[in-house]
Amino acid sequence: MMNRSSSGAAETKSKRIYDLLRERIFQNRYAAGDRLPSTRDLSGELGVSRSTVVEVYEQLIAEGYLESRPGSGTYVANLGKRQRSEAFPHAAKEDGAPAGLPENPVPFRGIDFRPSFPALDSVPVRKWKEAALTALDQASAADFGYAEDPAGREDLRVILCRLLLHSKGIRCKPSQVIVTSGATQAIALLCRLLLQPGDVVATEDPMAPFIRQIFVSTGAELLPVPVDEHGLRVEELPATPRPKCVYVTPSHQFPLGGILSIGRRFQLLEYARQTGCYVIEDDYDSDFRYEGMPIHALRELDEERVVYVGTFSKTLFPALRIGYMIVPHHLLDPLLRLKRLMDMHGPTLPQAALARFIAERHFERHVARMKRVYGKKRSLLIACLRDTFGNGVRISGDAAGLHLIAEWPDCRFDSRTVALLERQQIRIYPAERYAIVRGKHENRLVMGFGNLAESQVEEGVRAIAEIGPGIIRR
Amino acid sequence: MMNRSSSGAAETKSKRIYDLLRERIFQNRYAAGDRLPSTRDLSGELGVSRSTVVEVYEQLIAEGYLESRPGSGTYVANLGKRQRSEAFPHAAKEDGAPAGLPENPVPFRGIDFRPSFPALDSVPVRKWKEAALTALDQASAADFGYAEDPAGREDLRVILCRLLLHSKGIRCKPSQVIVTSGATQAIALLCRLLLQPGDVVATEDPMAPFIRQIFVSTGAELLPVPVDEHGLRVEELPATPRPKCVYVTPSHQFPLGGILSIGRRFQLLEYARQTGCYVIEDDYDSDFRYEGMPIHALRELDEERVVYVGTFSKTLFPALRIGYMIVPHHLLDPLLRLKRLMDMHGPTLPQAALARFIAERHFERHVARMKRVYGKKRSLLIACLRDTFGNGVRISGDAAGLHLIAEWPDCRFDSRTVALLERQQIRIYPAERYAIVRGKHENRLVMGFGNLAESQVEEGVRAIAEIGPGIIRR
Repeated sequence: MMNRSSSGAAETKSKRIYDLLRERIFQNRYAAGDRLPSTRDLSGELGVSRSTVVEVYEQLIAEGYLESRPGSGTYVANLGKRQRSEAFPHAAKEDGAPAGLPENPVPFRGIDFRPSFPALDSVPVRKWKEAALTALDQASAADFGYAEDPAGREDLRVILCRLLLHSKGIRCKPSQVIVTSGATQAIALLCRLLLQPGDVVATEDPMAPFIRQIFVSTGAELLPVPVDEHGLRVEELPATPRPKCVYVTPSHQFPLGGILSIGRRFQLLEYARQTGCYVIEDDYDSDFRYEGMPIHALRELDEERVVYVGTFSKTLFPALRIGYMIVPHHLLDPLLRLKRLMDMHGPTLPQAALARFIAERHFERHVARMKRVYGKKRSLLIACLRDTFGNGVRISGDAAGLHLIAEWPDCRFDSRTVALLERQQIRIYPAERYAIVRGKHENRLVMGFGNLAESQVEEGVRAIAEIGPGIIRR
Repeated sequence: MMNRSSSGAAETKSKRIYDLLRERIFQNRYAAGDRLPSTRDLSGELGVSRSTVVEVYEQLIAEGYLESRPGSGTYVANLGKRQRSEAFPHAAKEDGAPAGLPENPVPFRGIDFRPSFPALDSVPVRKWKEAALTALDQASAADFGYAEDPAGREDLRVILCRLLLHSKGIRCKPSQVIVTSGATQAIALLCRLLLQPGDVVATEDPMAPFIRQIFVSTGAELLPVPVDEHGLRVEELPATPRPKCVYVTPSHQFPLGGILSIGRRFQLLEYARQTGCYVIEDDYDSDFRYEGMPIHALRELDEERVVYVGTFSKTLFPALRIGYMIVPHHLLDPLLRLKRLMDMHGPTLPQAALARFIAERHFERHVARMKRVYGKKRSLLIACLRDTFGNGVRISGDAAGLHLIAEWPDCRFDSRTVALLERQQIRIYPAERYAIVRGKHENRLVMGFGNLAESQVEEGVRAIAEIGPGIIRR
């Protein structure tokens, strides 16, 4: 048979003959039951060696186009109906242009107040590269194979537990941790496990629209519960219908920025126990806390009701796609099973690099450095808002994270304002955009500062002052 | 307020006082409504500066433990019921020992005939490292952010289309490709999209148990269709119930190794059109073809009915977790939506590294080299089987891939045989293990040779000959 390690010329020749015969069969020039020319005849006709024709016949026999009848010859097999679809690939263009699909959104190059977005120009590339290289150098052959455990590399889970204890006072065991593809996959897996179509899930309102989509995609019904400056208004959780889970961002409510008060924490967990539901604690950005000590995790108060979800997207970089969850005992096995069926396990070399990056304290140092960087940006944004609007603006939710809330009493940020600013290359995020029940947050902006340069902060605030309808200037 | 950038000593001091007060509140020594000592008094009592106590009070107010009543003092807030769960974390052990969970399976260190498993000692680590480094060096700031497109990096999708055209004659556009976390995620997403509980999915029998689990986990009913040496016996697909999709491995049936004949391909696609179902083409190992030219993809015959699923797990390494699918027009948008809700998008730096690795032709060279390596192992395994069993063994399914089928007419590989060999550190894989309808493949072994050293091939066959009950020796 044709071996691809044979010379290129011979290979091309047999490929051409193969294509020719195949095309003749497709076009019914050779019909089912027809006897093909002998290899001798065809080699004469085509001016190639007989062995080339033999090769091609054998290939076509192996693929079922031809049949060999010993002592009689080679025949075209009965292929039955042999309709190729309209979209036969030869008709497909190869220019790479998307066919009838929306173009990728062009990355926005102006001043983008996108919340919860880290400074991409401050990624510790050099140190990360060192960690990635060392991880590759130290990898054993088995490290390139399938991981036995869908939970992720054990070295990462061990060092993560130490990190969480030191940085946030979270006590957990490596066996309770599942490494995921960003917090997104953690929440998606939890949805898949906890929610059936028709179930109810209670969430904060406002919240991140993307997370909302994940919940809604399960077919579950969303029960929005309002938040105030102390986080979720737990007393508004209903006695019926009982939600299967409650989604909260207790350390820094997204987007309004409140801390879930200790009283409400107890209340929420009491509610969870009484209704038998789980609480998903999404700790998306508490690493960057500018005032006071780290907020305790809700999980501290009940390890068996709370699933803690964390991410390295804000502290390192989003493209890494590494998040994790700390899982109640009862949910561990089903979640590991689901994770395995979803993607077997995550890519393990980046996990090894991350474990090393943390073990060598680069992570802590980076977070400390970024806290100073973000702290400066935050102070600048607050100063710009104060300078521009004086007491006409109310600032809140700024104790942690990469965004704050600015509120103008007699103002309304509608789509017209957004469009006007967008034309000036300023992208703003009205809080209303995150609301499930509309009409309560129209005078608020969610202002991310993580990925803005200082000059952009100043220019952005200036532009908002100039265009914002009803904004009171000092 | 306490700022963590303040000196370490001060920080520790305020942390201690914070913990002390918090514990007193938890223990009800300070009850709801109690007025706390003035900051002056407490600072005297504890021997710390007044500002430290002020800091701690402010933190506890922010978290909702205390309330400040202006002009009156600081009071303990009403925390309601304040039950901490039994599993309060201070009780959790930190020794990292899994709590009531099965230990990770110990990696098998003997001779493992695991099929479809690549040679982990031949991973092109140096070249891969170069590609990964260059990808990091050339990454723009935006490359560290979230990708706009859940389909994966465009440079990878473009070069992948070129690679597929050259190596397998597959014509597709980058916009038709979705990069996934291994073939697993591609199949999981397809299941999620195409199958509802109660639906029917037709699969080859035997098949990979793991893929079977993914199908079954959707709640769909599995309809096993037998295979023979020409692949799926398409004529046994039922008129009713109509499956929502048919899963096939047409280039090299897993595990039996047949090529789906062209006649059956037409028949299968005709069936798909008539019943309105999709065909999932899992091309898991056709890169390593030892006889003849590459087998055409089933997708070539109908781009709108066939979803082609590919993977880099066998050609590069499994830990990479990069697979892909080429998607019919109608499924593209829903699959992209699902992928986004599942994990936003895959990690993009390894994708950039892979794009570079392919663009610089390292991939083609590696596959060509590995084809020689695997070809040698395959020949050795066949020679060992022939030397040991003569005509007593029938070898099939060996034209491609990393495994073959060995069949002994009067033999039966039961769990006892498996256990006996396992005790000798030889792991074998009876074909029966992959069967849905049992009892048809008891005299067959699926023999993977990809990750075995030559000496292991010889030793493994010898051990099978010595222990295999009913195996006819020459």
